[in-house]
Amino acid sequence: MIAFGGNALLRSGDKGTFAEQLSNVENTCSCLVPLIERGYNIVIGHGNGPQVGNALLRHEAGKKLYSLEAMPMDFCGAETQGSIAYLIETAMEKVLRRFDRRVVSLVTRVEVPADDPGFANPTKPVGPYYTREEAEALSGEFREDPRGRGWRKVVPSPVPVRISNIDLVERLAREGYVVVTVGGGGIPVVRDGEGLRGVEAVIDKDLASALAAIQMKADEFYILTDVPKVYINFRTPEEKAIDTMTVAQAKEYLAQGMFAEGSMAPKVRAGIRFVENGGGQCVITEAGQLFNPLAGTRIIK
Amino acid sequence: MIAFGGNALLRSGDKGTFAEQLSNVENTCSCLVPLIERGYNIVIGHGNGPQVGNALLRHEAGKKLYSLEAMPMDFCGAETQGSIAYLIETAMEKVLRRFDRRVVSLVTRVEVPADDPGFANPTKPVGPYYTREEAEALSGEFREDPRGRGWRKVVPSPVPVRISNIDLVERLAREGYVVVTVGGGGIPVVRDGEGLRGVEAVIDKDLASALAAIQMKADEFYILTDVPKVYINFRTPEEKAIDTMTVAQAKEYLAQGMFAEGSMAPKVRAGIRFVENGGGQCVITEAGQLFNPLAGTRIIK
Repeated sequence: MIAFGGNALLRSGDKGTFAEQLSNVENTCSCLVPLIERGYNIVIGHGNGPQVGNALLRHEAGKKLYSLEAMPMDFCGAETQGSIAYLIETAMEKVLRRFDRRVVSLVTRVEVPADDPGFANPTKPVGPYYTREEAEALSGEFREDPRGRGWRKVVPSPVPVRISNIDLVERLAREGYVVVTVGGGGIPVVRDGEGLRGVEAVIDKDLASALAAIQMKADEFYILTDVPKVYINFRTPEEKAIDTMTVAQAKEYLAQGMFAEGSMAPKVRAGIRFVENGGGQCVITEAGQLFNPLAGTRIIK
Repeated sequence: MIAFGGNALLRSGDKGTFAEQLSNVENTCSCLVPLIERGYNIVIGHGNGPQVGNALLRHEAGKKLYSLEAMPMDFCGAETQGSIAYLIETAMEKVLRRFDRRVVSLVTRVEVPADDPGFANPTKPVGPYYTREEAEALSGEFREDPRGRGWRKVVPSPVPVRISNIDLVERLAREGYVVVTVGGGGIPVVRDGEGLRGVEAVIDKDLASALAAIQMKADEFYILTDVPKVYINFRTPEEKAIDTMTVAQAKEYLAQGMFAEGSMAPKVRAGIRFVENGGGQCVITEAGQLFNPLAGTRIIK
C-alpha cells in the first residue's frame, strides 16, 4: 500500500495547471519502478487537499457567476477521485509499458461512524473564505481565520472504519493490477436506516490508506511525503533523522510532541495503526528514495 | 449493458441540486429491480452532458473569481465520472440490499483514433458562451450560437475504439457485480508515442456503451431515455410507435430522417452497431418500462 502525498500532484510554487500536475504524477509514478521491478503488488491511495479546496471554490464561483448549484463536499470529493485517478492512470500506464501490468481506479466510499466524536467538534477548515454575513447565511459550522482572512467552513475528520470494495481491491492487486483507491481519504459516508449517506467531512488520507493496508493484509505501507525521513527535534540544532523506530518509540515521540500536527504526526499515527494491526512495516519517505530498500524511516513492531 | 440517459440524473425543470440528482438516480436504479430479479448481469454506462457543461462553467468561474486554473475538458469529464459514479453507487446500493449483489465503479478512459475525421471538423458545442473577443483569446475552435447567445467552444465527437479495462468490467459483471463504466462516454484519449494522452472531445455515450456491450459480448443492450418507445413520423398525425425493427429497417428509417439527430438517431445507430457486431438485441425505452419484458422498441438482426 502506497499513500501519495500532496506533492505527488502539486509542488509548492506550482500554478496547478494540468500539465504540471500530470508531470508531477509522472515523476512520482516513475519512482515506483524499483518496487515494480521487485515484483511488488501495488495499491495507491492519494490525498486531495488542494484539489478539493479548488473544487469547493469552483462550485462557489459557479454559484455566484452562473447561479449553478454549489454541491456538497462529498460530491466535490468524488469529483477529485475521478480527476486525480485519471492523472494517475495516465502517468502510471507510461511506467507500466515495460511490464505486463495494468492500472485500474475504483471510486471509493469510506464509512465513518455516525457517532464519531469528530462530528460534535468539526476542526478541519475547508473551502473558500467568507465574510461573517455570508457564513451566517450558509449551512454548516464556520470559524474565523486566525490570520483575519475571513470565515471558513470547518468539517469533522472522523475515523474511517470500512472501505467500499476493499476485498476486490486486494484481489486485483494480488493479480498484478496497480489499483488506485481511497482517493482523498475516500468519499465519507455514514450508515443510516436506508443505506450509506454522504457527509461533509474529510477523512485523513494516511489513516484511510492504513485501514486499506490492514484490511488487505499488506506486507508494507509506504507513506510518500516531501522529506526523505522522519526527524526528531526537526529544524533545531538537535535535529536527527530516524532510520527505524518501534511502535513504542514512535508513541513516545508523539507524546513528546516531536511530530507536527497536520503534517508528520498523522503519518506516524497511520504507520503505528498499520503495524499494531498486523502490518510488517511502515516506511515514511519521499518518492525519489524508493530505489533504496533501506530508504526512509521505518516503523516496526 | 444499460446506458442511462440524461434524465436518469436531471429532469427538465430540475435545479440540479444534489438531492434532486440522487433522487432521480434512485428512481432509475429502482427500475432495474426486475432485471436483477431475473438474474441479469449488469453494466451501467451513463451520459454527462449537463454535468460536464456545469463543470466547464465552474472552472471558468473559478478562473474569473479566484484565478484558479481552468482545466481541460478531459479533466472535467473525469471529474463527472467520479461524482456521477458516486451518485449511482449510493442509489444502487439501496436497491441491491435485498440481493447478494454489489456495485463497483471504474474510472474509464476510451481511446479514439488520433486521425478520426471528427478532429478536423469539431461540431459538438460545449461549455459556456463567450463574447467574440473572449473566444478569440482562448485556445480551441469556437462557433457563434445561431440564437445569438454568444460564442461557444466546439469539440470533436470521435468514434470510440477501445475501452480501458473492459475485460475486467466483463469479468466483474459476470461475477455479479453491477459495474459502472464509460461515464460520459469515457474520458477521450488518443495514442501517441508515449502512451495515451487526453484530448478535448466528447464521445457519444450510447456509442461508447455499444462498444462496451460488443466487447463484453453482452446479450442485450438497453438504452434508457425519456420515451417508452422509438417513433416514426414523431409528433405528426402519422406518428407510430415501433415495437421491433430489424437492422435493415432501422437503417432505412435513419436514411429517411425519421429520427432526430442529437436525440433518437444516435441511439438507433448505437443499437444497430451492437446488433451488427454480434449482439442479441438492443432495447430503447424508458426506465419505468423495464418491468415489462416486451417493453420499448427492440432492434434485432
